[in-house]
Amino acid sequence: MAKELKDLTPRSKDYSQWYLDLVIKANLAENSAVRGCMVIKPYGYAIWEKMQRQLDDMFKETGHENAYFPLFIPKSFLSKEADHVEGFAKECAVVTHYRLKNDPEGNGIIVDPEAKLEEELIIRPTSETIIWSTYRNWIQSYRDLPILINQWANVVRWEMRTRLFLRTTEFLWQEGHTAHATEAEALEETRKMLDVYAEFAETYMAMPVIKGVKSESERFAGSVDTYTIEALMQDGKALQSGTSHFLGQNFAKAFDVMFSDKDGERKYVWATSWGVSTRLVGALIMAHSDDNGLVLPPLLAPYQVVIVPIYRNEEQLNQINEKVAGIIKKLKALGISVKYDNSDNRKPGWKFSEYELKGVPVRLAMGGRDLENDTIEIARRDTLTKETLPQEGIEEHIKKLLEEMQQNIYKKAFDYRASATRNVDSYEEFKVEIEKGGFLMCHWDGTNETEELIKNETKATIRCIPLEGDKTPGKCMVTGKPSKQRVVFARAY
Amino acid sequence: MAKELKDLTPRSKDYSQWYLDLVIKANLAENSAVRGCMVIKPYGYAIWEKMQRQLDDMFKETGHENAYFPLFIPKSFLSKEADHVEGFAKECAVVTHYRLKNDPEGNGIIVDPEAKLEEELIIRPTSETIIWSTYRNWIQSYRDLPILINQWANVVRWEMRTRLFLRTTEFLWQEGHTAHATEAEALEETRKMLDVYAEFAETYMAMPVIKGVKSESERFAGSVDTYTIEALMQDGKALQSGTSHFLGQNFAKAFDVMFSDKDGERKYVWATSWGVSTRLVGALIMAHSDDNGLVLPPLLAPYQVVIVPIYRNEEQLNQINEKVAGIIKKLKALGISVKYDNSDNRKPGWKFSEYELKGVPVRLAMGGRDLENDTIEIARRDTLTKETLPQEGIEEHIKKLLEEMQQNIYKKAFDYRASATRNVDSYEEFKVEIEKGGFLMCHWDGTNETEELIKNETKATIRCIPLEGDKTPGKCMVTGKPSKQRVVFARAY
Repeated sequence: MAKELKDLTPRSKDYSQWYLDLVIKANLAENSAVRGCMVIKPYGYAIWEKMQRQLDDMFKETGHENAYFPLFIPKSFLSKEADHVEGFAKECAVVTHYRLKNDPEGNGIIVDPEAKLEEELIIRPTSETIIWSTYRNWIQSYRDLPILINQWANVVRWEMRTRLFLRTTEFLWQEGHTAHATEAEALEETRKMLDVYAEFAETYMAMPVIKGVKSESERFAGSVDTYTIEALMQDGKALQSGTSHFLGQNFAKAFDVMFSDKDGERKYVWATSWGVSTRLVGALIMAHSDDNGLVLPPLLAPYQVVIVPIYRNEEQLNQINEKVAGIIKKLKALGISVKYDNSDNRKPGWKFSEYELKGVPVRLAMGGRDLENDTIEIARRDTLTKETLPQEGIEEHIKKLLEEMQQNIYKKAFDYRASATRNVDSYEEFKVEIEKGGFLMCHWDGTNETEELIKNETKATIRCIPLEGDKTPGKCMVTGKPSKQRVVFARAY
Repeated sequence: MAKELKDLTPRSKDYSQWYLDLVIKANLAENSAVRGCMVIKPYGYAIWEKMQRQLDDMFKETGHENAYFPLFIPKSFLSKEADHVEGFAKECAVVTHYRLKNDPEGNGIIVDPEAKLEEELIIRPTSETIIWSTYRNWIQSYRDLPILINQWANVVRWEMRTRLFLRTTEFLWQEGHTAHATEAEALEETRKMLDVYAEFAETYMAMPVIKGVKSESERFAGSVDTYTIEALMQDGKALQSGTSHFLGQNFAKAFDVMFSDKDGERKYVWATSWGVSTRLVGALIMAHSDDNGLVLPPLLAPYQVVIVPIYRNEEQLNQINEKVAGIIKKLKALGISVKYDNSDNRKPGWKFSEYELKGVPVRLAMGGRDLENDTIEIARRDTLTKETLPQEGIEEHIKKLLEEMQQNIYKKAFDYRASATRNVDSYEEFKVEIEKGGFLMCHWDGTNETEELIKNETKATIRCIPLEGDKTPGKCMVTGKPSKQRVVFARAY
């Protein structure tokens, strides 16, 4: 029965199709009537809400406040930072008019040609320009610094090839924008937020990441250095999961944002920006799920436990309802979220399959024999194993089990990544190995040319220059020139 | 000192200017570089976050889930519901292109004429059309109903005259969109959400509201009936604070959304939508604040208590820090949010004035004499009174005080509204009374013509036909024709 309901393409057959099937069938998201834009359905949005809440708490713990800046960016703002315009002005949504009217010739409604904007407005692809034009008025003295602001918002980048959650024309994200008196402080902030992202990915998403710096060609347009966390998906492709940019004084200079320092001198302000998006929902799906459906780490599951009654008649259902009410109360007292599905329009087998598809970490089932024996069946989603246990103390058992599952899901992803990460020392070997996927740790001479050549020949990119781990120098696998340390190559989403 | 810092225009002199001064000086929001769009600053956004969190909890308690639909609406969608297009297609932001390019003639970046969209996209002014085009695919059978979805989003309406929070081109809001099998169920939902809004306004915002139905001319474009909560601001003008629409089958018919009922028949789905916006922040400010600054009801204050130390030297500050740490711990244990401002860049008098301006409900101050006597000074924002109390047990005192203040702020607004609400029975009297502001309860013959005449001659509109209170019939104050009950007239924001 499970098979018919789910009908997911197996990962081994077509990973991309498996992903798409899963997103659709688990009711996470779907394509909308607007090209490249998705509808995030309630179950998918609930995962995003769990992520948001946790990240927001972490941002606030590190001293940040939320604010909100306009959706629109005047076209001229984009031109002010030279690299930034190259990166972002190209594919974007442009508002040119502010009114529609009835077509005098009777063809429905048309754009009113008289309502043309003097200056076109761009839907924000990112908000550095509008925010730094605002900070200019907020910053006069060192006393006004630092500014530590985050924004939760929608942004638009006119992508030609889109994929639900991973790359969409409109997406939801948070963008932090901070202003500092010194370079050292801005650098510290950049690294601090990278650490927050890494902690979130590993502790909450159960997804191991490599922290590193981007090569010049992969930098955010307008940044001096882009820090990144890179994760490995089950098909061996990398996914950039969060970035933290040290922007130097680029935006301060572009928007003329200066402050009077303690020494009385006028100086340009130092900047950072950092963001993660609904792409993380895609990462979460791809990192852990299997051919039966989603596998959600308990800390981000919309509900951690589902309970399904198995009954022959109304009387038996009533008895089960009563028992279950007691269990739910105890679970909630331990802070465990739980859904009781005693709806009568679906059979238990259908429900089992549905909640497996939706990745609910723990499933409890109670039937007639359980009533007699004071037992309950407990199934865990990550290992697909089940056992029958006494009802007494089941809540404490579940609490421990959820913690164990969170660790187990992380460990599985960690072990997979370990097995798919290897040192490669010759370019010939590299060309063979890259076909198998995974992270290839290689020496590189640090030039754009070599990076470009490798990319063109193998579709592999430098994901990052890792901050931690092996720092032994060596020789570039392509040119033989000196290399400071191994860097991470992979094909990427 | 307080005066210089704040420099608010007194309400009695110019209420509009007072409001604007307050929004700017309390760092709630400011106008952006984009016409009609505001920047919501951290303190203003923190108030909105408190509102959001509370409303979101209330929506979830009433069975709703969050989701997210696209920012863009294809132009043709707006035309599908005849009244809707009249109301919303007029002043809106239109995306016509999806790319910029470098001007070949060297004039910076220009819109790429080759990247013209086949069909223009409208930035959502509200989402009924895109959502009902989606629901069409989600609904086949009565088993798929009801759908109870809410969305937190930004929307754009190209307003010509804007005012921070109250009317801006872009604003933040929530919009609920529900689908039901029966008319009765949809009507019940419409009323239920009106009650949720009224409870939120009265219990959390401490702002009394009148629940009622809009007259035909004031209805939401596309609805069968619009329910509203109407509040009275301190200048005697009304503010529509939330609306809940019974949409009948209008959108189901426009987007062909039908379901198979239990009886096997194909039927159109019934709809509601309901929303509140960042306008509520404006309402909150105008309802309670005074010439010294904001007055925030404790349940929505970003922090409820601020503590200021008054010290002569480092040693004394250390002693105060120690005492205060104990008090903060006890306050937090009671769920009370608190900020300790022991920054050394401002004098206590400046801080007192600043937190008064920001409407922090309770201010504590501790100085040398308090150290000797184990006392603390406590000031309440609503009455501007203060007293010195023993430190022992201060947390319990504050807990009760915050509850009392929440009630007191509500009562003050309630009493003001009661004094500004009166029955008026002749149109001559009406013309005199409307100049004094407030809610005028009058008989009206139920016609558009009479309503329009009154509006043109007096700028007063029918705020609503109240659901509760006096239902005695009478005669229209203008035409003498029969009237079913008194309705609420006022000038409005």
